[in-house]
Amino acid sequence: MARIGVVLSGCGVYDGAEIHEATLTLCFLDRAGAEIVCMAPNVDQLDVVNHVKGEPSGEKRNVLVESSRIARGAIRDMAEIKAADLDALVFPGGFGAAKNLCNFAVKGMDCTVNPEVERLIKEMHAAKKPVGFICIAPVIAAKVLGSFGPRLTIGNDKGTAGAIETMGAKHIDCTVDDVVICQKNKIVTTPAYMLGPTISKVASGIEKLIKEILQLAG
Amino acid sequence: MARIGVVLSGCGVYDGAEIHEATLTLCFLDRAGAEIVCMAPNVDQLDVVNHVKGEPSGEKRNVLVESSRIARGAIRDMAEIKAADLDALVFPGGFGAAKNLCNFAVKGMDCTVNPEVERLIKEMHAAKKPVGFICIAPVIAAKVLGSFGPRLTIGNDKGTAGAIETMGAKHIDCTVDDVVICQKNKIVTTPAYMLGPTISKVASGIEKLIKEILQLAG
Repeated sequence: MARIGVVLSGCGVYDGAEIHEATLTLCFLDRAGAEIVCMAPNVDQLDVVNHVKGEPSGEKRNVLVESSRIARGAIRDMAEIKAADLDALVFPGGFGAAKNLCNFAVKGMDCTVNPEVERLIKEMHAAKKPVGFICIAPVIAAKVLGSFGPRLTIGNDKGTAGAIETMGAKHIDCTVDDVVICQKNKIVTTPAYMLGPTISKVASGIEKLIKEILQLAG
Repeated sequence: MARIGVVLSGCGVYDGAEIHEATLTLCFLDRAGAEIVCMAPNVDQLDVVNHVKGEPSGEKRNVLVESSRIARGAIRDMAEIKAADLDALVFPGGFGAAKNLCNFAVKGMDCTVNPEVERLIKEMHAAKKPVGFICIAPVIAAKVLGSFGPRLTIGNDKGTAGAIETMGAKHIDCTVDDVVICQKNKIVTTPAYMLGPTISKVASGIEKLIKEILQLAG
């Protein structure tokens, strides 16, 4: 049974992990018989957004604690997880990926990446184990692994694609129901809600990503 | 295109809507081409639970605001929605259904139901429009429509099944991948995480529930 890590970044598209992308990732992994290891960094969120108003609420919440809502409590502090524990790793999207796992939402291509996130991605890459990045999460791959020139997609947004290329990656335009596979670096990406428009379209791309990740994991 | 309401009760299994059940409900409705109307009552949650510890955190959160995380912001105050606006209605589960939509988690069969929840269920029933209840949510159907003797399932939990029967409904044991259909009252129920054990099993029952609800909605 493949053991697949899923990195969550909170709970809600505007300040955390995109809930649909994260849930569909878990569903397709479970359906394929994978053992799932949910994890998140134990840090405060950059902000908390009222999702009705689309405005910061001024509250303070913790990324690991909020992520555990998606994981139904079964979650690990990312600091405890090594590449040796996993056969593959998947990052769902949501603004949390660009606010809490790195600060791309604030700093763009000059962003820094959470140390545990950076460590585990580098360990997986060195061990030649596959990593999937969904929606906006490929910006983390570009920042951490840009020097290896990975082929990535975030759909077709010119600004984000440009930032990804400036960080050293190659951006490939892609539709929501498809994936881009970088065989050399064992990275699979899909645009998901970077394109939308609705959950069932997003599901088709994530389903394909999980299939490819499991295949690369052998 | 069928117009289907989805009633959310917060965001997280222990104090709100069960995230997987809610997301899968949205995914199967969208895949079938339905128009989705997410809604929640605009009230405070009974409590906020730290899902890592499984303990109350002492925070205060609003059901509508937290539910909007699952709906990606596209949510309506339930008070604004009438049965005339909808072809069918679905209630995902999670403790929020038993803490925020009614207080079954505290009062058992002596529970009271949120006035807007009770109103809309009665309107849908009077209009002979189908309503689906997932996981623990059937206790709301038993409380509001018990006098019509609906056939319901919450899986096979003896205590909850007994409370459902005391409120006037007939409980039918059911597996996680199946549904119970009450043709007379146009109610469809599935056990979901009342049985589990994992998300893909829960998905199979919810997929069937959505199919039956859309068929009953014509």
